[in-house]
Amino acid sequence: MAEYTKVVLEESELPNRWYNIVPDLPSPPPPPLHPKTREPIGPDDLTPLFPMDLILQEVSQERFIDIPDEVLEVYKLWRPTPLYRARRLEKLLDTPAKIFYKYEGVSPAGSHKPNTSVPQAYYNAKAGAKKLTTETGAGQWGSALAFAGAQFGLEVEVWQVRSSYDQKPDRQRMMRVWGAEVHPSPSDVTEAGRQIHALDPDSPGSLGIAISEAVMRAAPDPDAKYALGSVLNHVLLHQTVIGEEALLQMKKVGETPDLLVGCTGGGSNFAGLSFPFLREKLAGNMNPTIRCVEPASCPSLTKGEYRYDFGDTIGMTPLVKMHTLGHDFIPDPIHAGGLRYHGMAPLVSHIYELGMLDAVAIHQNECFEAAVKFARTEGIVSAPEPTHAIAAMMREALRCRETGEEKTILTALCGHGHFDLSSYDAYLNGELVDYDLPEAKIADAMSRVPVI
Amino acid sequence: MAEYTKVVLEESELPNRWYNIVPDLPSPPPPPLHPKTREPIGPDDLTPLFPMDLILQEVSQERFIDIPDEVLEVYKLWRPTPLYRARRLEKLLDTPAKIFYKYEGVSPAGSHKPNTSVPQAYYNAKAGAKKLTTETGAGQWGSALAFAGAQFGLEVEVWQVRSSYDQKPDRQRMMRVWGAEVHPSPSDVTEAGRQIHALDPDSPGSLGIAISEAVMRAAPDPDAKYALGSVLNHVLLHQTVIGEEALLQMKKVGETPDLLVGCTGGGSNFAGLSFPFLREKLAGNMNPTIRCVEPASCPSLTKGEYRYDFGDTIGMTPLVKMHTLGHDFIPDPIHAGGLRYHGMAPLVSHIYELGMLDAVAIHQNECFEAAVKFARTEGIVSAPEPTHAIAAMMREALRCRETGEEKTILTALCGHGHFDLSSYDAYLNGELVDYDLPEAKIADAMSRVPVI
Repeated sequence: MAEYTKVVLEESELPNRWYNIVPDLPSPPPPPLHPKTREPIGPDDLTPLFPMDLILQEVSQERFIDIPDEVLEVYKLWRPTPLYRARRLEKLLDTPAKIFYKYEGVSPAGSHKPNTSVPQAYYNAKAGAKKLTTETGAGQWGSALAFAGAQFGLEVEVWQVRSSYDQKPDRQRMMRVWGAEVHPSPSDVTEAGRQIHALDPDSPGSLGIAISEAVMRAAPDPDAKYALGSVLNHVLLHQTVIGEEALLQMKKVGETPDLLVGCTGGGSNFAGLSFPFLREKLAGNMNPTIRCVEPASCPSLTKGEYRYDFGDTIGMTPLVKMHTLGHDFIPDPIHAGGLRYHGMAPLVSHIYELGMLDAVAIHQNECFEAAVKFARTEGIVSAPEPTHAIAAMMREALRCRETGEEKTILTALCGHGHFDLSSYDAYLNGELVDYDLPEAKIADAMSRVPVI
Repeated sequence: MAEYTKVVLEESELPNRWYNIVPDLPSPPPPPLHPKTREPIGPDDLTPLFPMDLILQEVSQERFIDIPDEVLEVYKLWRPTPLYRARRLEKLLDTPAKIFYKYEGVSPAGSHKPNTSVPQAYYNAKAGAKKLTTETGAGQWGSALAFAGAQFGLEVEVWQVRSSYDQKPDRQRMMRVWGAEVHPSPSDVTEAGRQIHALDPDSPGSLGIAISEAVMRAAPDPDAKYALGSVLNHVLLHQTVIGEEALLQMKKVGETPDLLVGCTGGGSNFAGLSFPFLREKLAGNMNPTIRCVEPASCPSLTKGEYRYDFGDTIGMTPLVKMHTLGHDFIPDPIHAGGLRYHGMAPLVSHIYELGMLDAVAIHQNECFEAAVKFARTEGIVSAPEPTHAIAAMMREALRCRETGEEKTILTALCGHGHFDLSSYDAYLNGELVDYDLPEAKIADAMSRVPVI
């Protein structure tokens, strides 16, 4: 084999089914509960918000689900994505480790999010929806849904947390290029937004408020549905196309990972790369360590409790069993906005609880230091979220330099940082804060988690 | 052949030589002249600024020049780049035309510029340089050189036109991530900058001033060289890797272009895609129309004169024979900053004069209208410069809808617009100005072009 830098797949090798890990697990994940009755919710509870195809995927027991041709056609605008061998970084680190990274930043929206926004838009359009609503923070998810809506003739209406809307105007501009309508949240177009405005005309907004606005807009409108960019089973399912491709690519070059690292916010990027490898591990075909990497200021897996809690800040959503820091826990303002979530995808939490994953929490200065080394050797300027995966990968590569181990490390590089350069600027100027571990704040927020 | 969306190449198919069109032309391009003696300049005149390998490429009569392994290794971080069939756009336009586009936005810096910054950095490092200096406007070239410098251990010092430096901070941040030092120009670190500052403390700068600063910094320092991102023969040479790949890709799917369109600023992106196809046309293997697309407010080919003029605004550079609007012509402030150049690459001008190319000039509203349609179907948000190529491609596709012709159109999509979203915003808000054709301004500037 000649010295390769990246492993590319032909379009004909694009996986044509998603992998559902649930039936392969030794026990099923606990069911979500209705926020009022506290009874397990059924498909009918979800129909005001989601089309039936997605609800059925949410509860599916099938191991594999075919990717519709219409979705594959859109995936081909950027998929299969490249798998890289980080030879230039290995040289810089002088490590015997073999470092691989799977790069999702080549999608039109610049991250892994379109892997699920596209099928969500497709199934909604198929079910007759005319409009999708959603919330977005920094804007990765909102732009992914705007792009997907344009592909299937759906209107897209996005509520973006006002502080991000004002600070990062390029993300909302991008959504508008794809035809979406974008509101700063709180907005004056929903009752929830107007109520917040009445209390605080200068409210910077929050993801919790934006969710309320998007849900309130969709629920009563028979032509509108709501879309969520992480956490749910069907979102994780759609992301497994990443791992299925990476399996093929590693096989092509005759490598199997000893360690797989991915950042975890809601958990969908991590699940997308790791679940297919977990399947192979369960089948005895390989034995990688699979590691979640979370920010030290929002350490749901390493410092949270595994119990039922709300998915949102204000307690509107179903109760789900997950690692949580408390539903009203507000993380310190680190630059990796996509990792500032109080909980973890219930499926990732369940698998972690089963002992099949490990987790580390890393401060942001270490992450950006690693990401700058990465950019200067591999070229790619990473989004703030996957700098956590890069930092964990680099820890292991440097450990291998000490021990001489030739470990193979596979890294989830889920997006580029073209809209996040101010965070690099802060790092290079020495202005980036490493917040203390939020132990007291967690204890406080946990005191308000319902006892089930 | 199944329905493909993009045509990918393996790394093993990456071209390993650049194509030099000069020996294939029916007559040689006129030589550059010394700005003072007005005699043809020789290699020795250029040694204070460029290493000998690049000077020899500048005057080479070899048809093919091997790409060094060290350059190929860096190219592999993003090359080969994808060739797309724009099936979703074809459907929207309801055209029988087959639309292809070659996408260079997958490079770390987001454009075609690293195709030449990488070999320029390599040859300079090989010759013992420790530092490269350059100027940049919007920042595409500066960031490409910053990336390349990091790959070969070279310091990079960039003078960025102050108005862009202030308005688009993300580009300078990106350069700093890759380790470059960036000055707003005029700066206080060169005599040229200090002189301008003394006259006008609030000067917004210009590319001409920034060139002066970068050249003045490099010329007297034996460890520093200067790098230019377009116009010169060796720059065009390096870009031919684009067209060589596209030839392979078109062949793979059994297509030959009837029309090739690319935007022309300095000419390097256009030359990069078109020269290899021009070779095949000269050899009788295909017969495409090859079209330059320029902005209506800076129409060097369609409205300029073919004569000797300076490459820079203030008359420091050699005199080169090219289509020029006058070296002190200042184009209206369209968003496609990379196309705001008063002249054209001498090699492109010479070939245009030989009747082997045609040219059109397009106003920016038509360009952005086309680019928004493109983004909503193909996903990619294009840089302002290649929106001109998209608009010309779309004109032809719509013409084909009228005539029923099944023309094959190949489009040079030289970069993404992630740092240019304010221009889309202006278009969507109806704020984009289509400036009048600058006839009087051209006549005025031409009156100051030296008579040779």
